[in-house]
Amino acid sequence: MKIGILGMGNVGTGVYKILQENKNEIVKYLGSHIDISKILVKTINKDRGIYIDGSMLTNNSDDILNDKSIEIVIELMGGIDPAFGYIKKAIENGKHVVTANKAVIATYGKELEALAKEKGVFLKYEASVGGGIPIINTLIESLAANKIEEIIGIINGTTNYILTQMTKNNLSFDEALRLAQNNGYAEADPTSDIEGEDSAFKISILTAIAYGLNVSSNSIEREGITKVQKRDIEYASELGYKIKLLAVAKKYKNEIEIYVYPSLVPNEHPLAAINDEFNALFLRGNAVGELLLCGKGAGSLPTGSAVLADILSVAKSIENNIDNIGNVNHGDKAVEVKGIGNSQYYIRLQVIDKPGVLGKIAMTFGKHGISIDSVVQKSRGEKTVPLVFITHDIQKDMLDRALEEVDVYEYVEKVASVLKVENI
Amino acid sequence: MKIGILGMGNVGTGVYKILQENKNEIVKYLGSHIDISKILVKTINKDRGIYIDGSMLTNNSDDILNDKSIEIVIELMGGIDPAFGYIKKAIENGKHVVTANKAVIATYGKELEALAKEKGVFLKYEASVGGGIPIINTLIESLAANKIEEIIGIINGTTNYILTQMTKNNLSFDEALRLAQNNGYAEADPTSDIEGEDSAFKISILTAIAYGLNVSSNSIEREGITKVQKRDIEYASELGYKIKLLAVAKKYKNEIEIYVYPSLVPNEHPLAAINDEFNALFLRGNAVGELLLCGKGAGSLPTGSAVLADILSVAKSIENNIDNIGNVNHGDKAVEVKGIGNSQYYIRLQVIDKPGVLGKIAMTFGKHGISIDSVVQKSRGEKTVPLVFITHDIQKDMLDRALEEVDVYEYVEKVASVLKVENI
Repeated sequence: MKIGILGMGNVGTGVYKILQENKNEIVKYLGSHIDISKILVKTINKDRGIYIDGSMLTNNSDDILNDKSIEIVIELMGGIDPAFGYIKKAIENGKHVVTANKAVIATYGKELEALAKEKGVFLKYEASVGGGIPIINTLIESLAANKIEEIIGIINGTTNYILTQMTKNNLSFDEALRLAQNNGYAEADPTSDIEGEDSAFKISILTAIAYGLNVSSNSIEREGITKVQKRDIEYASELGYKIKLLAVAKKYKNEIEIYVYPSLVPNEHPLAAINDEFNALFLRGNAVGELLLCGKGAGSLPTGSAVLADILSVAKSIENNIDNIGNVNHGDKAVEVKGIGNSQYYIRLQVIDKPGVLGKIAMTFGKHGISIDSVVQKSRGEKTVPLVFITHDIQKDMLDRALEEVDVYEYVEKVASVLKVENI
Repeated sequence: MKIGILGMGNVGTGVYKILQENKNEIVKYLGSHIDISKILVKTINKDRGIYIDGSMLTNNSDDILNDKSIEIVIELMGGIDPAFGYIKKAIENGKHVVTANKAVIATYGKELEALAKEKGVFLKYEASVGGGIPIINTLIESLAANKIEEIIGIINGTTNYILTQMTKNNLSFDEALRLAQNNGYAEADPTSDIEGEDSAFKISILTAIAYGLNVSSNSIEREGITKVQKRDIEYASELGYKIKLLAVAKKYKNEIEIYVYPSLVPNEHPLAAINDEFNALFLRGNAVGELLLCGKGAGSLPTGSAVLADILSVAKSIENNIDNIGNVNHGDKAVEVKGIGNSQYYIRLQVIDKPGVLGKIAMTFGKHGISIDSVVQKSRGEKTVPLVFITHDIQKDMLDRALEEVDVYEYVEKVASVLKVENI
């Protein structure tokens, strides 16, 4: 079985190493070898930390996309351009495609799935969500006989690492981000991770699989973690919560809530214990009940492990002469897609420490229909003090109106934080 | 696609309900329906809590095993007899088999796999380990390109429920067992669960899949939880551990350790947070790294969900004309199977509260090469006091010899507990 690889960066070298190191396991599974014919790279001569026969390398994509002997194309470049064009051309040329590219699948998945079905080839992307965690295979195969009721994921390792550092080592967001960058858990430009775009790509992919809905990642309600402060983590901790960036899809009768939001997770819930660069998916199906999958959401070998699983699955199908007949994306068109519905919120105000302030704010909340679950106020002998509320289930727009009014009140310095409370 | 079901107990009714309730999901996946032709039951007229058309029920197994229109036989009776004979006959008659039967698969899996391969039919048993958790599919498919280094499982819901009750509600073993029985988490005769036999069946199945080794569950070193006392849970807690019944398989270069043992798990490890009737599998693969799968390990619907996943997978293979060519059980014959290797242990002695006792015991330990990691002694103003040790890594036989000597020492009332410490 001959494959061509587009891109030999972090994930590419992982795939290359696993193919060498675990040759026996692969032959056991498949009964035959996987041979790399060609690898597309930008720079032929470059130290990649592994030995690769120079004759395998090319910087002409046609050497792979037009090579009739290559049956599977592995796309590991990342980003939309030129990866999307290459994937499309590979499928048009009748090649199966395995990719780890969340941006391409989230954005063009529907189009590419349809094209692959038309051409009878497979398009697989287990590695695009949750690195080595077999989330996509679990959703498609193992939970095939379930109605998926909710998916709650910690699916961005960078933000989880940052939040863990802020929690465990009492770092500020900026300090934790720098540490993440120094340790290779955040990129030089971390925007996509810390602003929640990466998580939005991934929950969009999972939503397409679980519910057959194509929700553009741009239209997903989202907020990143840049506004989360050390103080919020401390207060959350006092109240019995950890703060995590959650990517959520919840199905109700005729609607589905999809969002990415920094959220308070109760300490007793296993998601609260998912730390550092780990990812986790918490699912609820109407037959299986609760299911938690947890593992390394990124990294050369874990992501390579998922890419290999896809390659082996496609290779086995090729050997058994199975065409892709397509079985995802049969969406229920009557479902309305929305953002966060009724929810509890965590609110931190910075207020001047005077009698009557709490009462006035509570009255304003009450006027707007915001009822309060708990409140923490601690005088620290400073001029202004933090005042922390956790609300009951409310509509976000009611909260926004209440906070607008509170914000201009003379004893309120600022509305410092509004986070979601995910009561799982 | 016509199926026959052997047994309509707890899991059977779950499968029946899911087939009705999630019809749409199944058709989406498969493109066609799954129809139950016949159901083998002991008693035709019996309230099963669901409506089943009486003409479907039979108490003659030949109505299923000899019916040429039935392509898949679902065995959900449990126990070796007559289930094993029925499964064998079904395969011999060219039928695919899906089963949730851990006893049959652990005991006759190799023989049945070979027969199924010979007949070109599938034998699938996802539901035999971990209920709804997709552990077998993950090991076979998603981790196909991995060397599995270790499997550490909480794979018996009954014992996990009992230990959780003892921990959270300060119950004795007997009280917790009664509660488990009253709540349907333990059978009237709980022996197989509480003595670790059930866990041994399951780790034997996982070992066959992960390492191709057929280790009889009888030959697996095991101890149940009947000797675990409230006091041990308290001391473990003070020392930063939870007590769990772990089923373990660890692969080293030329040997593999397999055992079932009540063990102290560090609080920081996610397995320590798996409570009540939940199951969890912690895996380490040389590519994927650490992976944790957690969910309901038993119950009508969760187990039914796994049975349905197998049925759908087989049905899809039938529609694509794929025969089972067999890809498990290619074992490395050079591997030596053993029990617990070097390990830390938790030891609780009950001793008479006199000066010099601790010193004398520590010296005896030292003489036998047992070095001590930590020790807790608390006087409670009683005649005898508990003395708790955690050892460094040692060989169990050295510990046994040391404890034999300590046990006859006049100030030692008894060796009250010996538990393993699983330092993950």
